Amino acid sequence: MKRHFQKKSLPLDKVRRYLEPGPIVLVSSALNGRHNIMTMGWHTVMEFSPSLIGCVIAGSNHSFDMVRRSGECVINVPTTALTDEVVGIGNTSGAEIDKFDRFGLTAEKAREVGAPLIRECYAHFECQLVDDSLVRKYNFFIWEVVQAQAAVSPKYPQTLHYTGDGVFMVSGKIISRRKQFLPDML
Amino acid sequence: MKRHFQKKSLPLDKVRRYLEPGPIVLVSSALNGRHNIMTMGWHTVMEFSPSLIGCVIAGSNHSFDMVRRSGECVINVPTTALTDEVVGIGNTSGAEIDKFDRFGLTAEKAREVGAPLIRECYAHFECQLVDDSLVRKYNFFIWEVVQAQAAVSPKYPQTLHYTGDGVFMVSGKIISRRKQFLPDML
Repeated sequence: MKRHFQKKSLPLDKVRRYLEPGPIVLVSSALNGRHNIMTMGWHTVMEFSPSLIGCVIAGSNHSFDMVRRSGECVINVPTTALTDEVVGIGNTSGAEIDKFDRFGLTAEKAREVGAPLIRECYAHFECQLVDDSLVRKYNFFIWEVVQAQAAVSPKYPQTLHYTGDGVFMVSGKIISRRKQFLPDML
Repeated sequence: MKRHFQKKSLPLDKVRRYLEPGPIVLVSSALNGRHNIMTMGWHTVMEFSPSLIGCVIAGSNHSFDMVRRSGECVINVPTTALTDEVVGIGNTSGAEIDKFDRFGLTAEKAREVGAPLIRECYAHFECQLVDDSLVRKYNFFIWEVVQAQAAVSPKYPQTLHYTGDGVFMVSGKIISRRKQFLPDML
């Protein structure tokens, strides 16, 4: 499977197409000239427009302070081509290693935020923190996506969906029921 | 595929196994002797213990008042065997029809909440509302799972993951990378 994708900008209200299915994502961040990556499975779409994403980033993650203090991150969607990297990133700490170096990933300049994109991923959502009212109680961050890109092909990527216990389910097979939907429900 | 499953109770900190992969779920609710079902794709795990789930239920849904006023719901996980029902439930309103009747689904008494289980689903998570502080601003509800059941087999169900536009991705194929995980990361 490809590790490099040709990408195009997306309208921000289309972000749900890539995140609502619930893939494991890689969150990249930067602060004071350092960058980091973490794996994340606890996230949800919250609104089409503005494009809002809620997610849990536990205080034990090295990324917690970086995203909270910078108020920015990039949510990157990896495919099964990056399974080893996803596992490795989730099992190491940015306090000890540079994860871009360790896992052979490319930090690419984002358009709207200081956090880097991970070039080898299928899609990138540049985010600004808009609500931290539930961070103290639940480690729950609410982000506005301010810039979005996704690969031109394949149309539906093979994504990883984490079940715990070291096991991922893979999405990729498609069922279209478009004809059964009311026009205003699409 | 089976539409009836033998089920067993789950420890509440295992709920993430079924919801973290991001499946479309069916939310059942009850109020004043009436019940309803809605499809939902915007949800996230928020904590292992207590077992917390956050989700968006828009005010335009007939279920909104039912879950808010009752403070209870059941999150049911359907498999691809219920694809037609998932689509139909998402394209109709409980203000006009009884969705259990219309879609041939069985309302089964839950153990801890007044909302019914949907028997034909693979797993059921009985929920009590624990935080409505973000309902007004984002329609975001935080639930504590107080009772959980899942089917004994198959071990990994084929679940539906919504991308919008009438199209679902299907999960079911498994990748195990258990051996690459640190013991305390499993």
